[in-house]
Amino acid sequence: MELLVVGSVALDTVKSPAGEREEMLGGSAIYFSAAASYFGPVRLVGVVGEDFPWDEVEFLRERGVDLEGLEIAEGKTFRWSGVYPEEGERETLLTRLNVFENFRPKIPAQYRSSEMVFLANIDPVLQLEVLRQVGNARLSACDTMNFWIDSKLERVFEVLSRVQMAFFNDGEARSVVRESNLPLAVEKIHAGGPAIAVVKKGENGALMSYKGSMFAVPAFPLKDVQDPTGAGDSFAGGMMGYLLSKGSLERRTFREAVIYGTVMASFAVEGFGVERLKVLREEDIEQRAAKLVGMISLSPRNSVAGTS
Amino acid sequence: MELLVVGSVALDTVKSPAGEREEMLGGSAIYFSAAASYFGPVRLVGVVGEDFPWDEVEFLRERGVDLEGLEIAEGKTFRWSGVYPEEGERETLLTRLNVFENFRPKIPAQYRSSEMVFLANIDPVLQLEVLRQVGNARLSACDTMNFWIDSKLERVFEVLSRVQMAFFNDGEARSVVRESNLPLAVEKIHAGGPAIAVVKKGENGALMSYKGSMFAVPAFPLKDVQDPTGAGDSFAGGMMGYLLSKGSLERRTFREAVIYGTVMASFAVEGFGVERLKVLREEDIEQRAAKLVGMISLSPRNSVAGTS
Repeated sequence: MELLVVGSVALDTVKSPAGEREEMLGGSAIYFSAAASYFGPVRLVGVVGEDFPWDEVEFLRERGVDLEGLEIAEGKTFRWSGVYPEEGERETLLTRLNVFENFRPKIPAQYRSSEMVFLANIDPVLQLEVLRQVGNARLSACDTMNFWIDSKLERVFEVLSRVQMAFFNDGEARSVVRESNLPLAVEKIHAGGPAIAVVKKGENGALMSYKGSMFAVPAFPLKDVQDPTGAGDSFAGGMMGYLLSKGSLERRTFREAVIYGTVMASFAVEGFGVERLKVLREEDIEQRAAKLVGMISLSPRNSVAGTS
Repeated sequence: MELLVVGSVALDTVKSPAGEREEMLGGSAIYFSAAASYFGPVRLVGVVGEDFPWDEVEFLRERGVDLEGLEIAEGKTFRWSGVYPEEGERETLLTRLNVFENFRPKIPAQYRSSEMVFLANIDPVLQLEVLRQVGNARLSACDTMNFWIDSKLERVFEVLSRVQMAFFNDGEARSVVRESNLPLAVEKIHAGGPAIAVVKKGENGALMSYKGSMFAVPAFPLKDVQDPTGAGDSFAGGMMGYLLSKGSLERRTFREAVIYGTVMASFAVEGFGVERLKVLREEDIEQRAAKLVGMISLSPRNSVAGTS
């Protein structure tokens, strides 16, 4: 199978209790492909400006990410800036869409047969355009955000009706179907929507519902979180990357994939930007996956063997 | 083994989005023993006033709860009243300690050899008095609350140094050791404290650390929560009741016990007061335990067999 991601590429300025960084490589498509690249080759579609520091994505190319679909447009690259306080929600200080404002995803001909596609958090109208261009996907998945839920709910629903898997955070899962009870919200998401719903709850872990059959995983316990940016996209990248590596869309494989999504999200937040996602070894990933499986095993001695 | 609980007995007035009830039977010792009674006999120590409606605890007696230690003092029974809003924290409207204000737990001679004891959320000075009276406990466990953490932190630490297991909610686990990072907080709780720390996170489930080895369980998914009062004590009751029924303090048994604690908490909040905890059948409990085990199993077909 081939895995395609369509999303944003940005330069992020982030301040957190652990420090601050300016104009780091970021964006949903970057985090997703950095995480997924540990499992198999990824194809990236996005847009950058003429000022884009191409050196910064060299590690992705080396890791097998195909950047043919990363188009250069006249103007500047998307900028985002935010602050993570000691407690509470992050605050966005600046959003300059720049070339991303007029992004119209053009899927290169050789990508259109991709069997797996991740529609990162972009305008649902664009997500629908991508789905029209990629006709053969066996597994298409989408992310969204409250901005689109509030402004283009009907289009969001149209996307949900056409994908097999959707990612939400806790609040989005409730607001997209206007239901404050999470189990009921998930039921409503399934009705007319994707068979698989993944609800990411940050330090409270993640929940996957596969046609109503629930699977829950805690967050990987971290003693030092540096920069929460990109956790959700790294989760999706780890999860879909794992499915890609297995070449299987069995129910059990999805449960294993949630483990790897959680692991990749944990690495993402341990460094600023993608700095930690750049330098992982396969054994780092397997060790965390094994520890996480141990955290949900009734027998404390259960090993990673359970996941293979 | 024998299981002793020392805690409050109250008459609760509760308002929630699901309705309201006046002067229902409540209190930590009541929720704990109602939940634990499904697994084995419980001994209760507490105090009530002359106005106590004894009919209300008849179901506990029938379920094998020994009420010899429920003393009658001159005056009125403890009253508590609170409101649960649609979203956010509960608000306490009224706390009249009444006879509970001068409660000095007197452990009946025949209870002093109890091998398991739960010190519900009472003044840590009283918890220490109970520990002195019950010398043979193989497993003593305590609960606490921010009120005591703020006002009598040294005594709370003294209790923690003398018990094998401690229950916290998410905020308490952080505030008791002044550490906002939960994995670090748990580490600090273990240092000089109990080998087993249980962190209850409401609808985000529970985490148990057994000497640093973590086990995580999601909350049981409920479509209708009526009254969250007593969830924590029912959790502790289910957990310790299960340990009592197994007569074993193996590491694996504690993990299974967390499953049963979660299940009993889920029943507690499905009705007002103890109304749901009064009328359970063994198969109701086993069905939820099986479903919960299924929610953390990599193989979706795993059954409850894994817990026996």
